[in-house]
Amino acid sequence: MTSREDCLARDQADPLACLRGLFDLPDGTLYLDGNSLGVLPKATAARVQEVVRHEWGVDLIKSWNSAGWMDLPRRVGDKIAQLIGAGPGEVVVADSTSVNLYKVLMAAARLQQERSHERRVIVSERSNFPTDLYIAQGVCEPLGWELRLLDAHELEAGFAPDTAILLLTHVNYRTGRMHDMAHLTRLAHECGALAVWDLAHSAGAVPVDLTACEADYAVGCGYKYLNGGPGAPAFVWAHPRHADRFAQPLSGWLGHVAPFEFSPHYTPAPGIARYLCGTPPVLSLAALECGVDTVLAAEPHGGLSALRAKSLALSELFVQLVDTRCAGHGLTVVSPRDAGRRGSQVCLSRAEGGYAVVQALIARGVIGDFRAGDSRTPDILRFGLTPLYTRYVDVWDAVEHLRQVLQDGEWQRPEFHRRQAVT
Amino acid sequence: MTSREDCLARDQADPLACLRGLFDLPDGTLYLDGNSLGVLPKATAARVQEVVRHEWGVDLIKSWNSAGWMDLPRRVGDKIAQLIGAGPGEVVVADSTSVNLYKVLMAAARLQQERSHERRVIVSERSNFPTDLYIAQGVCEPLGWELRLLDAHELEAGFAPDTAILLLTHVNYRTGRMHDMAHLTRLAHECGALAVWDLAHSAGAVPVDLTACEADYAVGCGYKYLNGGPGAPAFVWAHPRHADRFAQPLSGWLGHVAPFEFSPHYTPAPGIARYLCGTPPVLSLAALECGVDTVLAAEPHGGLSALRAKSLALSELFVQLVDTRCAGHGLTVVSPRDAGRRGSQVCLSRAEGGYAVVQALIARGVIGDFRAGDSRTPDILRFGLTPLYTRYVDVWDAVEHLRQVLQDGEWQRPEFHRRQAVT
Repeated sequence: MTSREDCLARDQADPLACLRGLFDLPDGTLYLDGNSLGVLPKATAARVQEVVRHEWGVDLIKSWNSAGWMDLPRRVGDKIAQLIGAGPGEVVVADSTSVNLYKVLMAAARLQQERSHERRVIVSERSNFPTDLYIAQGVCEPLGWELRLLDAHELEAGFAPDTAILLLTHVNYRTGRMHDMAHLTRLAHECGALAVWDLAHSAGAVPVDLTACEADYAVGCGYKYLNGGPGAPAFVWAHPRHADRFAQPLSGWLGHVAPFEFSPHYTPAPGIARYLCGTPPVLSLAALECGVDTVLAAEPHGGLSALRAKSLALSELFVQLVDTRCAGHGLTVVSPRDAGRRGSQVCLSRAEGGYAVVQALIARGVIGDFRAGDSRTPDILRFGLTPLYTRYVDVWDAVEHLRQVLQDGEWQRPEFHRRQAVT
Repeated sequence: MTSREDCLARDQADPLACLRGLFDLPDGTLYLDGNSLGVLPKATAARVQEVVRHEWGVDLIKSWNSAGWMDLPRRVGDKIAQLIGAGPGEVVVADSTSVNLYKVLMAAARLQQERSHERRVIVSERSNFPTDLYIAQGVCEPLGWELRLLDAHELEAGFAPDTAILLLTHVNYRTGRMHDMAHLTRLAHECGALAVWDLAHSAGAVPVDLTACEADYAVGCGYKYLNGGPGAPAFVWAHPRHADRFAQPLSGWLGHVAPFEFSPHYTPAPGIARYLCGTPPVLSLAALECGVDTVLAAEPHGGLSALRAKSLALSELFVQLVDTRCAGHGLTVVSPRDAGRRGSQVCLSRAEGGYAVVQALIARGVIGDFRAGDSRTPDILRFGLTPLYTRYVDVWDAVEHLRQVLQDGEWQRPEFHRRQAVT
């Protein structure tokens, strides 16, 4: 049986342990919520101050040239491209994941409409993150299309001659279950559908190879495993075979081939740059670059393969400790026990009091989060295990707190049952 | 004839002069480009640091509740509402001006489609800011609608039975010419069209009363006269008679009536909140709030009426000094000489070397900008006169620099003719 000392020894031997020093981690907190909001990189505060005080405060409008603000969406996009199997010049940072998803779904829909009017269904997973489903509804409604929601196990057999687009989040936000991107993309293509992937819970956490998978479009989030800060801008990728084909409908001036010619007529920029729209939020974008740099800092230590190996070692340990040390307390591991199908989080369920258990943990400084279930799905206790800054001993300590919260009935205290606006 | 001493005396007597102390203005710079990027408020750097180091760095995910991040788009929206004649709860901050314009044009188009299928034209001004025209093109194309571009003097007679939407930027970005919002909105309504206003060059610079004008929709920019920082998020308003009628198609999760119920089905929030989409960029949004606060700080000193009076006094002075002190140098005042039709900027043209004149001024620390003309419109030398921080003596000094640049032929130096990516 693993002991706390074993965990300390594993941290001692961990070749990625040095990366933790890149972050400002608050004292007295075991932060297992990097899947919701990544922690603050040490470089960020100074960089944001430089942007505010010097680039904006002193150089003002000149900084669009002199500080490279114009180039930021492409520069940070190129860095993210290295983490998701995309080529240079294939990714830009812009807007939010939701807005980018609208762009690529509209482009994909138009591609399919040119091919055939029989295809008018977007297939997705019923437990996909809601904003993906809402945006898909917003795309379907004016087109007279249908959004068809399936459970994860129905997806393989879920393609039909009317399927236009497969829209999936690679790693499910509730369960941490990871889809086989290559396999499902192949099935989609065999049926004549296009594959759109949301990498919100993948980018920076698990290896992704959009090019090898022959995926069609992808979007993703900057504020989770990329550590870009609250509401950091998102990214968007289109396979080069599609990128030039259509202007997505959010045809703002920064996606124009020559924005500073101020032509009254829209001519899209070549390639992915046409997925840019309005002026980007430079402060948030500068912070995102610092966050992406923390993931790229793993390159000399084995990069995403090494991060993935550590992430799985952390989650294996978490599951093992829950199984052994929390036995008898009604916890079920909801995330796949098969490591190959698991993202970088572990989710538990409990028939009773899941919300209160999470609140009791938060009161002890162990930050996870809670996602309510419904008639089809259980309540979820979520624990993200970001390999850049999470230690083996953190996992041991977190599970020990969980054990104590359950064993002593601490979770039953009334203060842990009061709901907050954002959970 | 006005002397520099007269200008210094006017600054001494200016009841708004104290507001300049709210800003960090760089030494040796006469900044007349607040219509492109407002200057840095003194409060912003510390506020952004607090958000980065404490709210994100220490409190992490909890800050969505404890620091009020969830409420930011509405809170800052309520502040902006006070500057544009909108009620509390009628404005939210979200996304970019371009993206917000797409939302309101799609909502307005849908409204018109329900009324009649004969109306399928968006009327706008040929010299409207290009992103507005590009977004309108993106809206028109899939609907099979037409974007009809008119010159400013053609607008009054430009409504036809097929006109669905009038889309105008209140103050023209090139010329500083201000449309009569109440009059044109009335003409639009009389013809059965809806009026959509872009307040990019108005909010915080000129009084706007959307409610009194009975406007239908409005969007605007956070980084010009609202001093929100580079690429600050934008705002959106829909008249309460429309706000609840349709879900705009960018139906992201933060526009849902209950985002944290994670329902797979989109139900829009009541009112303007349904115009929210994805997770907002908190760092940039916090900076925007500081910027908006600088405009609200004018309230005890007469608010926007006082700011408008000073803005016009500054631009009258600018025009008078150009007329008198730069006579014979080929400059033409392009902005309306009628103060009531002028925004908060003065634009000049010159048959030759406009770009180089602006570059020569920039080299002297006088920051204006240049907008190239085409076969229909002249090259423009733009000078923004933000009344919050521009002094009368700044206007005197700027025109004196302009006089010297022209008189001594300084603008003819080769280094002032090299083009930059962003002008």
